[in-house]
Amino acid sequence: MIVVMKQNFTPEQMAAAVRVMEEGGVKVMVSKGSETTILGAEGSAAGIDRNRLSSLPGVERVMRVSEPFKMANRKYHPDDTVLSLPGGREVGGSRLAVFAGPCSVESREQIVSVASQVRQAGACALRGGAFKPRTSPYSFQGMGTGGIRLLEEARAETGLPIVSEIMSTEDLDLFEEHVDIIQVGARNMQNFDLLKHMGRITKPVLLKRGMSSTIEEWLMSAEYILAAGNPRVILCERGIRTFETYTRNTLDLSAVLAVKRLSHLPVLVDPSHACGQAWMVERMAMAAVAAGADGLIIEVHNDPENALCDGPQSITPEAFQVLMRKLEPVAACVGRRI
Amino acid sequence: MIVVMKQNFTPEQMAAAVRVMEEGGVKVMVSKGSETTILGAEGSAAGIDRNRLSSLPGVERVMRVSEPFKMANRKYHPDDTVLSLPGGREVGGSRLAVFAGPCSVESREQIVSVASQVRQAGACALRGGAFKPRTSPYSFQGMGTGGIRLLEEARAETGLPIVSEIMSTEDLDLFEEHVDIIQVGARNMQNFDLLKHMGRITKPVLLKRGMSSTIEEWLMSAEYILAAGNPRVILCERGIRTFETYTRNTLDLSAVLAVKRLSHLPVLVDPSHACGQAWMVERMAMAAVAAGADGLIIEVHNDPENALCDGPQSITPEAFQVLMRKLEPVAACVGRRI
Amino acid sequence: MIVVMKQNFTPEQMAAAVRVMEEGGVKVMVSKGSETTILGAEGSAAGIDRNRLSSLPGVERVMRVSEPFKMANRKYHPDDTVLSLPGGREVGGSRLAVFAGPCSVESREQIVSVASQVRQAGACALRGGAFKPRTSPYSFQGMGTGGIRLLEEARAETGLPIVSEIMSTEDLDLFEEHVDIIQVGARNMQNFDLLKHMGRITKPVLLKRGMSSTIEEWLMSAEYILAAGNPRVILCERGIRTFETYTRNTLDLSAVLAVKRLSHLPVLVDPSHACGQAWMVERMAMAAVAAGADGLIIEVHNDPENALCDGPQSITPEAFQVLMRKLEPVAACVGRRI
Amino acid sequence: MIVVMKQNFTPEQMAAAVRVMEEGGVKVMVSKGSETTILGAEGSAAGIDRNRLSSLPGVERVMRVSEPFKMANRKYHPDDTVLSLPGGREVGGSRLAVFAGPCSVESREQIVSVASQVRQAGACALRGGAFKPRTSPYSFQGMGTGGIRLLEEARAETGLPIVSEIMSTEDLDLFEEHVDIIQVGARNMQNFDLLKHMGRITKPVLLKRGMSSTIEEWLMSAEYILAAGNPRVILCERGIRTFETYTRNTLDLSAVLAVKRLSHLPVLVDPSHACGQAWMVERMAMAAVAAGADGLIIEVHNDPENALCDGPQSITPEAFQVLMRKLEPVAACVGRRI
Repeated sequence: MIVVMKQNFTPEQMAAAVRVMEEGGVKVMVSKGSETTILGAEGSAAGIDRNRLSSLPGVERVMRVSEPFKMANRKYHPDDTVLSLPGGREVGGSRLAVFAGPCSVESREQIVSVASQVRQAGACALRGGAFKPRTSPYSFQGMGTGGIRLLEEARAETGLPIVSEIMSTEDLDLFEEHVDIIQVGARNMQNFDLLKHMGRITKPVLLKRGMSSTIEEWLMSAEYILAAGNPRVILCERGIRTFETYTRNTLDLSAVLAVKRLSHLPVLVDPSHACGQAWMVERMAMAAVAAGADGLIIEVHNDPENALCDGPQSITPEAFQVLMRKLEPVAACVGRRI
Repeated sequence: MIVVMKQNFTPEQMAAAVRVMEEGGVKVMVSKGSETTILGAEGSAAGIDRNRLSSLPGVERVMRVSEPFKMANRKYHPDDTVLSLPGGREVGGSRLAVFAGPCSVESREQIVSVASQVRQAGACALRGGAFKPRTSPYSFQGMGTGGIRLLEEARAETGLPIVSEIMSTEDLDLFEEHVDIIQVGARNMQNFDLLKHMGRITKPVLLKRGMSSTIEEWLMSAEYILAAGNPRVILCERGIRTFETYTRNTLDLSAVLAVKRLSHLPVLVDPSHACGQAWMVERMAMAAVAAGADGLIIEVHNDPENALCDGPQSITPEAFQVLMRKLEPVAACVGRRI
Repeated sequence: MIVVMKQNFTPEQMAAAVRVMEEGGVKVMVSKGSETTILGAEGSAAGIDRNRLSSLPGVERVMRVSEPFKMANRKYHPDDTVLSLPGGREVGGSRLAVFAGPCSVESREQIVSVASQVRQAGACALRGGAFKPRTSPYSFQGMGTGGIRLLEEARAETGLPIVSEIMSTEDLDLFEEHVDIIQVGARNMQNFDLLKHMGRITKPVLLKRGMSSTIEEWLMSAEYILAAGNPRVILCERGIRTFETYTRNTLDLSAVLAVKRLSHLPVLVDPSHACGQAWMVERMAMAAVAAGADGLIIEVHNDPENALCDGPQSITPEAFQVLMRKLEPVAACVGRRI
Repeated sequence: MIVVMKQNFTPEQMAAAVRVMEEGGVKVMVSKGSETTILGAEGSAAGIDRNRLSSLPGVERVMRVSEPFKMANRKYHPDDTVLSLPGGREVGGSRLAVFAGPCSVESREQIVSVASQVRQAGACALRGGAFKPRTSPYSFQGMGTGGIRLLEEARAETGLPIVSEIMSTEDLDLFEEHVDIIQVGARNMQNFDLLKHMGRITKPVLLKRGMSSTIEEWLMSAEYILAAGNPRVILCERGIRTFETYTRNTLDLSAVLAVKRLSHLPVLVDPSHACGQAWMVERMAMAAVAAGADGLIIEVHNDPENALCDGPQSITPEAFQVLMRKLEPVAACVGRRI
């Protein structure tokens, strides 16, 4: 930690800053520049009350030099985290993990048919929304518990583990009992109450990046889950909000590289939500694999034109099969397989 | 609603689009431009399955021409909503509503002393966090239920109604029973589960704008609360996330004007969180009042240097008193009083 | 300047970093934290090759602790810069400077009539575009030299100095000879060639903030002009690009406060371009004055409906007169007059 | 073009809107919805004065339904534009075009050595800055004309055509005579004066996307060059400005797909400037090729640690050679070769 003093600080103000730092358990190094005096912490800065330090009258700025996340940090956990899924596949290993399925579960026939098609094409988990986060209270909000039941039937038929988004802590028991991978959506990435609950379960948690979250905030949300006791976190980049409106969001593939460097957690990419347009999915999926993603989440719907949710960004099972075939050689380029 | 057809659409594709629109209960007007053919809906477009329409092969784009929010819309509710607070003051009327208090409740002495000072200076409610949304799981998370108890003591001493942020639906009973105005924070603006619960209570809800929420999304979140049965919504602009890092966020005062035009709901401004720096609060508060805000939320701490949370953006009770005096003539400029 | 070393740096790598810093003329302070070692510069860091330092193998990051702008910096020029305009008014003093006029000059009658009306209402300069930066090559590009001539006629009639945007260094002689305040538009804020030319003239330069420029970049562009020899720089905040699309841009009034603190240069606000909607101009202008702007630039058109450019954001001369009256008491609130 | 009328428009206001549209040469279709009345243009909307229409009192909004760019539009030019470079290579064809070289030319030895190494590794053009756009007036501004001379020497030695950025229209003759591909940098993307000049030459122009430019604005800047007579435009995505600060900018690979769909112009990707970190270049380059870019621009420096500019994002000639080998199989995945 570095403290930059204000231009005309008094000796008393500097002494106060040094005191707060020393109370935090560090030795303080003073470095007087021609314009600026800085205080550097020698030792772990974890015990320093950064907030109080920032508020001291003589202090201009407090700058952190080490990452604020610990358990999510690759520094203290150099090896990649590899998670085993029910059904025997893994996330984070050399084989790419592709989750596929419709935005929302609509009927038994739909979900079972999509499930068996995506399984055949090589998906390792079935995604399907039962509780849907919709901007409008007047939009279809998902089938709820009934949707979870149908996902279970699809699992029974295909053997694919199921991924679904949790919207309420009231549904925790339902999800823990019936869902294999629990998704925390972009809009809830900083719903800290939900994150703490996710830390108390043992199921893998798929944590989507918030629409305007920095990489650091995203990893801090993962840290909430890890710190509360659940090491099974899968990250998912799904596009960030920018000024560009041609695409629904802007897929940030450099974030995949950053996360793989900063953290040991696996990271998937969701090109469907990022772009919002079905025709873009194939190429952005290929780009994501080339960039180094550990896998993908792809929206697949048997009848996109009549989908109750996100039809425009869903691809058909046939297109998904083509995509999986095209991903194979791309995966090989980066030493992976599909 | 307007449907723009693709360049080389077939007659069958247009017929399909017309059919979906007509099934939604509208008459369809066809307008063939030299390059583009568009379909216009005559009648209410509310029944049209927009999503399905977007997914039709011949359809390029579906454009909405009316706002998606109804109960929050000034069109159907031309008069300003004015809410009465316990203690007799109002939000949304000609007198400005100023909520003030510390970021987080820290002790009985602190909260009672700040409460009596801000009341004396003219605040109409006491804000104080008991459950705090913190980016880091290692930061002070608030005093919890104990904090609510202390806020009640401060209310008993001063008569000021209390405002506090809810983080979990598990605390609903606690908040409904003990808190006067329940805040939904920026990070939970699209926590739809929480919003639906807010719609089932009768207490006023202070809905902060999400860090990267458009004005429309913000009003749609208000719509969730209104549609579920609670008409007591107070909006609060608190800065949006942009590329600029000098300030914590960028205060968007034009959003105040936009919201006042689009909706009948009252809107407050929180310059403390927007700027993140105490020295900016006074001037941005004055600007907010000049722009037309119905009131303000100001972080006031008796000892900012030792605050457990957000010290750098808190002003002292003395500075708050000065601010309130300076706001008086500004309020007069826009036909209001403090 | 602070150098953060990589986690596993070698002694040789640290020695190399120290050497580069010492060659830059500073004494180096080493501060070893438990996780991180940092090097602090004692003395002026101006001579250090920051780029080279960043590229050294053992270096994680180079952090600047002092502002990179010198001549624009309030630290070395504590008093506000006050510029005199032809006609006797000032920019940056206690009296607000309001520049008004149409987006583009369209005819003698138009510009003379608008000029006399805004002068009567209290404007201190006439703005009018002769060379227009238009997104489309097919849009009206301005009257060019003829427009400058008409502005001069309006000046002759009213005594108001004229402000116009320069688009090309080929027009430098024309502007130096005939225009009183030369505007560098948002799109050219980092057209460094143009900035250098602006530094070689003696006319005041109105430097608009780029649409996605940080405050620091903006002040660095001012620094280009100052460093090249022209101290007459007026800054102008005109809205930044964000994800919000309700307004054309997002007016960043906190930037006004930031600039006034960081720099001695005067700063105006252009609410017309920021909001893009005439009905918002009055209130945002009042807010800008309350925030501490040294003045305003307002688009005024005699016939907004038939304006060749930016009609929707232009107000009428009558509305301008009303605005000026309303600004008077707001100015008084911040110790200024109009 | 669609015109949305205000809620309580008068018959006269609608007649006025219809008149303006008809004067623009179209037939007007009226579509009355339950809440909204819209006017649709039948025929080409190109002649309609959109600005005037927007300013009419009864008009709420004017919405464009067709793209504003014509010559850059794939609709009117379905085939990919393929440009021939001196030396025999092409941009936009099935073989990827990779431009490589240092951020700035520093010495004869440097540029000739880098040129021969990148040529050997498969680059088809040598990039090198002679005139540098630097945020600070105190940073190295490039070698200027001398730098162009050195680039020519490197071309003489290697046969590689040279790419360099133009900063000033005063250098037009120099560039036209000596440079093979003239770059317009991100900061000058809306320097319309420079764009018009670029339209009057015959050399290929490399047009970088502005830091906060929408795809549409970028194509409109290309349109400036095309409309002025030069059909040889190469686009280059180089990252956009977002709230994320981990990377210098956010590389927007979905923009590559969008541009390839909307336009026939070739598009390259510059991962070096987008990410600002050498270690990210390889993977983002591979992702760009997978996404469908027609080529890449890569910063290569013989001695990044001692580079005068952008060292941290430059890779060594050896790393470039490795990159080119890795790109080969990725190119094959999308039916291209390197």
